[in-house]
Amino acid sequence: MQNFDFHNPTHIVFGKDRIADLANLVPAAAKVLILVGGASAEKTGTLAEVRQALGARQHSTFSGIEPNPGFDTAMKAVQLVREGGFDFLLAVGGGSVIDAAKFIAAAALFEGDAWDILLQGGRNISQALPFGTVLTLPATGSEMNNGSVITRRDIGAKLPFRSRHLYPLFSVLDPTKTYTLPLPQISNGVVDAFVHTVEQYLTYPANAPVQDRFAESLLQTLVEIGPRLLTATAPDYDDRASLMWTATLALNGLIGAGVPQDWATHMIGHELTALHNIDHARTLAIVLPALLQERRAQKHAKLLQYGERVWGIRSGSEDERVTAAIEHTRDFFERMGIPTRLSAYGLGAEAIDVVVHQLEDHGMTQLGEHSDITPAISRRILEGAL
Amino acid sequence: MQNFDFHNPTHIVFGKDRIADLANLVPAAAKVLILVGGASAEKTGTLAEVRQALGARQHSTFSGIEPNPGFDTAMKAVQLVREGGFDFLLAVGGGSVIDAAKFIAAAALFEGDAWDILLQGGRNISQALPFGTVLTLPATGSEMNNGSVITRRDIGAKLPFRSRHLYPLFSVLDPTKTYTLPLPQISNGVVDAFVHTVEQYLTYPANAPVQDRFAESLLQTLVEIGPRLLTATAPDYDDRASLMWTATLALNGLIGAGVPQDWATHMIGHELTALHNIDHARTLAIVLPALLQERRAQKHAKLLQYGERVWGIRSGSEDERVTAAIEHTRDFFERMGIPTRLSAYGLGAEAIDVVVHQLEDHGMTQLGEHSDITPAISRRILEGAL
Repeated sequence: MQNFDFHNPTHIVFGKDRIADLANLVPAAAKVLILVGGASAEKTGTLAEVRQALGARQHSTFSGIEPNPGFDTAMKAVQLVREGGFDFLLAVGGGSVIDAAKFIAAAALFEGDAWDILLQGGRNISQALPFGTVLTLPATGSEMNNGSVITRRDIGAKLPFRSRHLYPLFSVLDPTKTYTLPLPQISNGVVDAFVHTVEQYLTYPANAPVQDRFAESLLQTLVEIGPRLLTATAPDYDDRASLMWTATLALNGLIGAGVPQDWATHMIGHELTALHNIDHARTLAIVLPALLQERRAQKHAKLLQYGERVWGIRSGSEDERVTAAIEHTRDFFERMGIPTRLSAYGLGAEAIDVVVHQLEDHGMTQLGEHSDITPAISRRILEGAL
Repeated sequence: MQNFDFHNPTHIVFGKDRIADLANLVPAAAKVLILVGGASAEKTGTLAEVRQALGARQHSTFSGIEPNPGFDTAMKAVQLVREGGFDFLLAVGGGSVIDAAKFIAAAALFEGDAWDILLQGGRNISQALPFGTVLTLPATGSEMNNGSVITRRDIGAKLPFRSRHLYPLFSVLDPTKTYTLPLPQISNGVVDAFVHTVEQYLTYPANAPVQDRFAESLLQTLVEIGPRLLTATAPDYDDRASLMWTATLALNGLIGAGVPQDWATHMIGHELTALHNIDHARTLAIVLPALLQERRAQKHAKLLQYGERVWGIRSGSEDERVTAAIEHTRDFFERMGIPTRLSAYGLGAEAIDVVVHQLEDHGMTQLGEHSDITPAISRRILEGAL
């Protein structure tokens, strides 16, 4: 097991009818800027619940945060925070709104050009406004971690940053708030949480049996509930609750503590989103099976363990079992309604050059748990995903 | 899944050579009272490492905190804290020293009779001194939770309390610090962590598949590493690390979030320790198998799941599988060198009356996940443990 630090101070407030708890969770004297995406938070009544819980606190709402939140949009909110004297942010939505909240919280107190936050990956953040979240879309885990990804569409860049100042003070997770989500967003959530887990698990053995089993627990649960979530005639509370808690645990630092991590699938996927506006989870479903195939030698031992413990693959040669584990992964994504080939998104071999160039431009030239996925290997992974 | 709150702000600092991190973890201006048990922290050099890391900070050492830490001992430390103006406590040891630190942290700032803290279960704690820990004995999980148990030997009482003010600020977990432990303490740690997990898992189905699998992950790991820990010719770093992290995760609030909990084994076990000074873990090993047998009907579904997932029991009638699951549990404790019968500790039927009376005196009359374990049922459990 590797040395690690684990420190996650976010207060999770989980369950039915917990939005009312905002009355106690948000500081009494706070001047609150509520951040939302499109119109759904208003339409579904969630915003009305939030405002009621805020009671007499001064508050205003900034809406229009887009999926893969944009730098320009976030900077408009920063301007509003500064001009309006807001001292608390409340993100109401999914990972995009929460990611934007993190950037806004840091940028509002940042001196200099806020784009530098992204160029430095957040290392230059020394303070941030306090913020909380009300999660409506389980997927990214942003509600219980200190990371975020912001996109600049004018230059086709999607860049991550993190800081110990960016843990949400609290996150309200009410599974019933997922009932109005379109099913493709549920599918995205399942795949996103699945790949987050895989990035911290499917590397090489590190004598960390608890971390392995925790990761497998999350994967087994997603495999169990994923298809049910799509076929249920009405939303099932417990399955929605399990998805929500699984997605949070998939990226709150716990399963990755003390073990090697990969993240190459994410880095390559980010470029696909930035260039072609493909949903984050869908880019992961494209890249991961091809990456596992390309790296099957380096990941051999863990692929065997994954195949056996998550998919029950116990027969055949080691090589056959590895192949089966990769194919089960691809099949699972497809069964969740997420295509796993670039061609399904209208992209052919001609698209690969630009992705590889962007990886190089963004310094993503030594990816993976061994830092040995060069641009040439990323190219082969993308060719395998055609 | 039940509604829950999860909020655990303790910073875990895990791995080899991490005691040096105290230089940054302890507030620079702190006046530190180091709390230790017997002489081992001094003998092994751990205290020297701690003092070196504290550098120029003022510090003093209070030693003599006994296993099942006593109220009278803790109150002596409270007096020292007050007279010496100490504003930070650093517990160096196992669960007993850390539990004592929690009581001292609360009692030092408590107005009135500090025994009331225990009579109220900690509900009357409104503040506490900040404290950190250096863990040398993996077992209780006290290093990452807000609970504690204090014993008053004069009246044979061992009472738990908790408060949100009592999370350690940080805990340093260096697995090499367990190398000098006598093997019976390793056995105790394995059994303690095992039963902590069972108390939050072996109840009734609650549609919480992730919590179930996380609990099973901890149990499977303890089953895997437990016997190896006893037979290794030299301490194995990774197995010691897994024991340490497993014991922490077994009682940091995570696996119990959103699910029913039992704790009857602990409440009955506490009386055995208070009356007969039997090690905490050994009382759990006595009570649990008998409790599972007595409650096999109420715990039927989870006993089947436990038997299959933790022990691989898949054949036989349901009744036979339940019996096998209970017997595997008892055998595991015995293989870890921990006797599971009262008779092994020199206690016979004549000892049961007093234990039952003490349970009644301490209000422990509605125990278990259904609050239906009456003193009469506790008596039957103890009779089953003869």
